[in-house]
Amino acid sequence: MGDLKPLSNDEALKLCNQTPEETKDFLFQQTMYRIKDPRKSLPFYSNVLGMKLLTKLDFPSMKFSLYFMGYEEVKDIQGDLSETSRIQWCMGRKATIELTHNWGSENDETTYHSGNQEPKGFGHIGLMVPNVDKACERFEKLGVNFVKKPNDGKMKGIAFITDPDGYWIEIFNDKQVADVVKEFS
Amino acid sequence: MGDLKPLSNDEALKLCNQTPEETKDFLFQQTMYRIKDPRKSLPFYSNVLGMKLLTKLDFPSMKFSLYFMGYEEVKDIQGDLSETSRIQWCMGRKATIELTHNWGSENDETTYHSGNQEPKGFGHIGLMVPNVDKACERFEKLGVNFVKKPNDGKMKGIAFITDPDGYWIEIFNDKQVADVVKEFS
Repeated sequence: MGDLKPLSNDEALKLCNQTPEETKDFLFQQTMYRIKDPRKSLPFYSNVLGMKLLTKLDFPSMKFSLYFMGYEEVKDIQGDLSETSRIQWCMGRKATIELTHNWGSENDETTYHSGNQEPKGFGHIGLMVPNVDKACERFEKLGVNFVKKPNDGKMKGIAFITDPDGYWIEIFNDKQVADVVKEFS
Repeated sequence: MGDLKPLSNDEALKLCNQTPEETKDFLFQQTMYRIKDPRKSLPFYSNVLGMKLLTKLDFPSMKFSLYFMGYEEVKDIQGDLSETSRIQWCMGRKATIELTHNWGSENDETTYHSGNQEPKGFGHIGLMVPNVDKACERFEKLGVNFVKKPNDGKMKGIAFITDPDGYWIEIFNDKQVADVVKEFS
């Protein structure tokens, strides 16, 4: 058996005790995963989750396209979908999802791996919402698949849904989650 | 063979033509993946990539801890690491990485799956940096593993490094990437 205890807070803080000057303008721009069918994923990320299509990039020589989705104001999204200025703007925004579509995968046997069965790795993305119950009632009406509803299991008020490829999406509220977490710590 | 062409821009835009009022305060808060050893991952995400440790949550009954990392200003990070107010603050921030550590995995045979070999799924996270060459020179000095250096392959100016578990991290610049993409489209 391994050493079954966590790092202490002090040890964790000591492991992170440098603030490199060279990284001060770094920005966490994207999380990329592969999708089978943009005709299913685009309506899900936009019309169900409420993200905007920020830009779309086609690579004919390599037969794939990239769809960048994110929570941005309509007024900030300028220019045509694949215009250079719009690509540059998108690539400078925090917190986007990059959906990779290999052309033709919607018509073949392709399936993608969520990372939550063996071999595990990636787990999920997570959305903070003002009201988990209201958000989940709407998802139910829209026919979204749930891994966990807000009242299932031990962690009340936290839900997991899946996207059309089976990737997990956590739905939580910042105030509520801080209280739930305290019960378990 | 499938239908090897992309959606047109018009079709993509039509698939995203709703702007649901109910999702207007949703926020893309987290991207979660599992890590084997926080003693390796925390120095990498903080001292190499320059993220801050935003909060740390321990779940003794389930024997795991969560480390939330992100690009935030030191002045905005208030209170003790695992204090309720700090958890709540963290859970309301965009663009964090949630590293999940199952206690003891650092001492057993656990390895995690990057998603870039079969079965594929998740691909990478991506960091926008002011200068890709400078960032990568520094990574090389720090002994970081590269999947692709900026001058390798066809996509010049874009690099991929790996974290201690082998997850891929893209390094790019917003201005440069828009130009590179245009060459291929």
